[in-house]
Amino acid sequence: MQWHEIRDPQDPELDRLAAQYNLHPLHIEDCRHRNQSAKVEESRGYMFVVLKPVLIAQDGSLTTGDLDIFLGRDYLITVEELTCPSVRGVLDQVRAAGRELRPDQLFYRIADGIVDSYLPILDRFSEVIDELEDQVLDRPTPDALSRIFETKRSLILLRRVLVNTRDVAAHLQRSESDLIQRDLWPFLRDVYDHVARNLDAVEMQRDLLTGSLDIYLSSVANRTNQVMKVLTVLGTIALPALVISGIFGMNLKGLPWIDSPNGATIVGGIMLATTIALLAILRMFKWF
Amino acid sequence: MQWHEIRDPQDPELDRLAAQYNLHPLHIEDCRHRNQSAKVEESRGYMFVVLKPVLIAQDGSLTTGDLDIFLGRDYLITVEELTCPSVRGVLDQVRAAGRELRPDQLFYRIADGIVDSYLPILDRFSEVIDELEDQVLDRPTPDALSRIFETKRSLILLRRVLVNTRDVAAHLQRSESDLIQRDLWPFLRDVYDHVARNLDAVEMQRDLLTGSLDIYLSSVANRTNQVMKVLTVLGTIALPALVISGIFGMNLKGLPWIDSPNGATIVGGIMLATTIALLAILRMFKWF
Amino acid sequence: MQWHEIRDPQDPELDRLAAQYNLHPLHIEDCRHRNQSAKVEESRGYMFVVLKPVLIAQDGSLTTGDLDIFLGRDYLITVEELTCPSVRGVLDQVRAAGRELRPDQLFYRIADGIVDSYLPILDRFSEVIDELEDQVLDRPTPDALSRIFETKRSLILLRRVLVNTRDVAAHLQRSESDLIQRDLWPFLRDVYDHVARNLDAVEMQRDLLTGSLDIYLSSVANRTNQVMKVLTVLGTIALPALVISGIFGMNLKGLPWIDSPNGATIVGGIMLATTIALLAILRMFKWF
Amino acid sequence: MQWHEIRDPQDPELDRLAAQYNLHPLHIEDCRHRNQSAKVEESRGYMFVVLKPVLIAQDGSLTTGDLDIFLGRDYLITVEELTCPSVRGVLDQVRAAGRELRPDQLFYRIADGIVDSYLPILDRFSEVIDELEDQVLDRPTPDALSRIFETKRSLILLRRVLVNTRDVAAHLQRSESDLIQRDLWPFLRDVYDHVARNLDAVEMQRDLLTGSLDIYLSSVANRTNQVMKVLTVLGTIALPALVISGIFGMNLKGLPWIDSPNGATIVGGIMLATTIALLAILRMFKWF
Amino acid sequence: MQWHEIRDPQDPELDRLAAQYNLHPLHIEDCRHRNQSAKVEESRGYMFVVLKPVLIAQDGSLTTGDLDIFLGRDYLITVEELTCPSVRGVLDQVRAAGRELRPDQLFYRIADGIVDSYLPILDRFSEVIDELEDQVLDRPTPDALSRIFETKRSLILLRRVLVNTRDVAAHLQRSESDLIQRDLWPFLRDVYDHVARNLDAVEMQRDLLTGSLDIYLSSVANRTNQVMKVLTVLGTIALPALVISGIFGMNLKGLPWIDSPNGATIVGGIMLATTIALLAILRMFKWF
Repeated sequence: MQWHEIRDPQDPELDRLAAQYNLHPLHIEDCRHRNQSAKVEESRGYMFVVLKPVLIAQDGSLTTGDLDIFLGRDYLITVEELTCPSVRGVLDQVRAAGRELRPDQLFYRIADGIVDSYLPILDRFSEVIDELEDQVLDRPTPDALSRIFETKRSLILLRRVLVNTRDVAAHLQRSESDLIQRDLWPFLRDVYDHVARNLDAVEMQRDLLTGSLDIYLSSVANRTNQVMKVLTVLGTIALPALVISGIFGMNLKGLPWIDSPNGATIVGGIMLATTIALLAILRMFKWF
Repeated sequence: MQWHEIRDPQDPELDRLAAQYNLHPLHIEDCRHRNQSAKVEESRGYMFVVLKPVLIAQDGSLTTGDLDIFLGRDYLITVEELTCPSVRGVLDQVRAAGRELRPDQLFYRIADGIVDSYLPILDRFSEVIDELEDQVLDRPTPDALSRIFETKRSLILLRRVLVNTRDVAAHLQRSESDLIQRDLWPFLRDVYDHVARNLDAVEMQRDLLTGSLDIYLSSVANRTNQVMKVLTVLGTIALPALVISGIFGMNLKGLPWIDSPNGATIVGGIMLATTIALLAILRMFKWF
Repeated sequence: MQWHEIRDPQDPELDRLAAQYNLHPLHIEDCRHRNQSAKVEESRGYMFVVLKPVLIAQDGSLTTGDLDIFLGRDYLITVEELTCPSVRGVLDQVRAAGRELRPDQLFYRIADGIVDSYLPILDRFSEVIDELEDQVLDRPTPDALSRIFETKRSLILLRRVLVNTRDVAAHLQRSESDLIQRDLWPFLRDVYDHVARNLDAVEMQRDLLTGSLDIYLSSVANRTNQVMKVLTVLGTIALPALVISGIFGMNLKGLPWIDSPNGATIVGGIMLATTIALLAILRMFKWF
Repeated sequence: MQWHEIRDPQDPELDRLAAQYNLHPLHIEDCRHRNQSAKVEESRGYMFVVLKPVLIAQDGSLTTGDLDIFLGRDYLITVEELTCPSVRGVLDQVRAAGRELRPDQLFYRIADGIVDSYLPILDRFSEVIDELEDQVLDRPTPDALSRIFETKRSLILLRRVLVNTRDVAAHLQRSESDLIQRDLWPFLRDVYDHVARNLDAVEMQRDLLTGSLDIYLSSVANRTNQVMKVLTVLGTIALPALVISGIFGMNLKGLPWIDSPNGATIVGGIMLATTIALLAILRMFKWF
Repeated sequence: MQWHEIRDPQDPELDRLAAQYNLHPLHIEDCRHRNQSAKVEESRGYMFVVLKPVLIAQDGSLTTGDLDIFLGRDYLITVEELTCPSVRGVLDQVRAAGRELRPDQLFYRIADGIVDSYLPILDRFSEVIDELEDQVLDRPTPDALSRIFETKRSLILLRRVLVNTRDVAAHLQRSESDLIQRDLWPFLRDVYDHVARNLDAVEMQRDLLTGSLDIYLSSVANRTNQVMKVLTVLGTIALPALVISGIFGMNLKGLPWIDSPNGATIVGGIMLATTIALLAILRMFKWF
């Protein structure tokens, strides 16, 4: 049993292995042109599987890598991308766990490791969405809006990875190839269950994120509504005073109380009374 | 016929039973790592079923537990989570109902009990949604908004539990395993029908909840509209008075009625007339 | 051929028939616990069918009843709910039509009658939706909003009944049971077509109702927009007058025309000119 | 080979043909009760097909008619509705094209003619939607809103006709009946392709129409936003003048410049400066 | 092996080939009437495939062309549209690559070339959507709105082309025709994978575009909200001054400080204090 680890897809060693094990040129091309979808293809004598490790950057943006695996009867070839540390971690762990495993057992452990690496990313998204929800309810800013859409974009990407990985797991479970021995079937089913559960969680998070956007719009609408109310209340307080003071500012004859020494007090009282009456009416209509 | 009740998944008794009945290590692991989805898996000699009892807290938030069941030909193992009283109730009831039942009959009764326990939760949601609908029509507050989204979150969670449970019920109905005898089939179909009906109800409630959000937005929009109208009506009442009093407050010569002893009365009349005319025009355009 | 009409599900006669015809206890339970979904179940020697007559109240709210039917080779048992007059009408009509019919023919006529009874309800909804659409375009009130959501709720309920009934009809068409003779097949297909067409209509009505809500929101937005415009036009008319009269109300020296006998006329002219100029600018920008 | 053209479904000739060719009573009933869905039913010795010619009125509203066809081995019966000129056109054209055709060939030509008659209607909708899109971007009026919903209603109706017609075409393609000879199969597939393409186009038009509604709402929101800005700019221009002139209108002692002969000029300059400063600030914040 | 390149569908050469190779008249008609959907049809002795090259104009609008291919056992006929340079490029490249290829190999290369030509178009859309997202967040103008909808329209069109092309690829993969030899199967699967990945990308872009529209609406709502706040703050600053100056402008007796030489200073202080107090209150409620 041989495990060939290729750490650079451009490595000519890969060509040598292709010749030795009769690998299909399209598969070698897939290894070298990155950005494949997760997939599994059965070929004569081996299975070609592409898995998608996912990396979350500090700022929350998501990048995906490729991990290409050739699973043969007595060999395993893994082709890594140069820049993906999480894959390295998984492979090191599997290698440490035991060299005397069969190729299909190694393959299962690698796939299991990749799928497990999605979990902390999902948890991270859960936190981000909780934060966003609180933020938009409390204070809907354009910045929150922009973060909602970045998160949405990442979830769309992650969902695509998970859907394809689920299809891979489903295919492996149903595969009639003898490259994977029967005793591994419950374990592959377990991988499938994990991916399916992750996918469920992503769908739920998308639902919640869409909800956040609705909260955002509702909160903004609500705030506009409240700003309007304050404006109206301010207007209500000010208008009687403005109108009445305007009237008594006219250079006309015949205005009442104009000669009374208590004129200002009387008119001030009228202003106050009108304002209070208007506020009472607004309150009656449950305005505030 | 043996019924082993394990009340703590960490109990070493479970390891003993695993050895005795040849239980798959992945299933034992599932028992000990919580937060599984509802599922059924057929293994050599037994069926492994995970059910999801659901608990609704005082404040309306939902938590789900796990109930793991191993159904063998002549034994039944149930593994409870420590903290779920509703499961305890169901198991006690089943145990009381009769010890002389077959394992598959016991299993049916437990599953039936779990599924029945979803009903009061659905009723609770129905009430909450009715309340929310009335509230947002009458008085759309940010608090109602936040409750709508909490309820939505709970419904998304409950829906997920029900979808998985329905799949379990469908699988059991179609299963060709002889662990479940034929006379139980109509009963399993009944369980399936119950879950499917619950799921229908949850979908309906989600539809209605989405409706509540639409009502919320519409109500806020409507209220903003009405605030604007009040502002406009206030403006309509005040503006003529302000403009006219402004004009007669100017220190200019040649203003009409400025020397008339009835000047104030005349100008006051003009103010009143203009205001009434404006209000009449607004009413003509169906403004209020 | 025997037709047993049970008018009260609690009637002990039902127990007697259950014993005589070997009816499954779960089916008897279904008869007694109401609020089943429409469904069909084939049992040994008979078919158990639940149909859902629908009643529309004066205020437009929908209630559904249950009609349970046991179709045997030489007997028919119908179990009605106490309170559903429309079922009574259908059964009386079928009974009048002929006693010498086979059980499956009687069954077809009953099912056909129930399905036909959905049609006036659909027509009623069509009218309601047309009315609502006109109303929200013309005058979007919170009352219309609330009626839209009540109608939506009823349509969701009706849709659920129709989907289940369609599944019943589909099952009956495909059934290989010999309880239904071949010459009835085109008639069952006809029932299926009717239900499917009704379902189509309900989907269309839901689409239109969703449209009504969109009209509502658009209309409110539009009205707010128009209120704003009126406010702005009012402001446009008033502001120059207010500013200019304010300026000439100042107790300062050096204001122009302050000593001219035509001061008021000149300044009044300036006010008018400014207002007209502003209105002209607004019109230029297609403001009104 | 006989082609019986029935131009009035009430014609007793139809009963005669029903007797002669053994037509199923349900099919005769379908001919006489209009408003069927497009469908195909295989009966002993003949096929019963309902097609749905569609008519677009001057005002853009859609009406559908029925064309019922009985296709037998050596006869064809077409039953038209009284009021549908487009069907007449198609039938006349087919009749002119040749009497020596087989019944299935005639049937294909009629079906092809009906399906082709949908094309100009789709083109008409395309134009209407283009117009509406331009209109709502330029000037979102309630009238445009109402036209959007009328068009939506028509598209929902047309979609339903096309979905059913597509099912008819699919059924005919797959039918194992020998009423339709093999050489017609590519032609039936062609009809299917046409209907499927029309359906694609309708889906696309619905998407675009939904887009129009979004544009409408966005445009209205945008306009409200702009009205608000104008109001604010107006307020910005007016407020300093109002406040300052108010202050200098007070009957108080100690106001500055009150005795200066250039008081008005100084204060006017201050007003102007404040207004310009405010406008500069607004522009700094990209207000206009 | 013969490759017939027809560059003008009206070319009578096509009729000659139709006669020579027994091509179905409907297929020749399809070649001459443009605007087919991508499709594949197996006929006696050959396959008829329609592919849809896509062209993106300078202004971002999309046009689609037709490329019709007849794949026979020992011949290949390609019928181009007159105006599509990208097809020309693909065909020239394939021709250059080798004349000694089998017809099915040539066909694969052409299909691969057409599918590859979709990639730069997708990249272009990605850029456009990124730009639009930034623009609507920063500055939601009606122009951006109109560009969003144009892009949406193009994506709907492109999606339709891709869906049909994917169906073609799926059909070719599953085809049991011996016109395509087994060694080509992995390559056809590769084409299918490419189209499926493109389709994934288009769906993702549609999601993001819908998101852009949501951002647009949210941004506009947010801006309206901010305009309202500014208006309110302006009002808050101005109203106390207006009210107080109005009061002291009244021609009444008994106003306080009216005879004090520091009257203006005192009252001015009161104005300032009130304004500052109001601003403090607004800030307390997190107004700005």
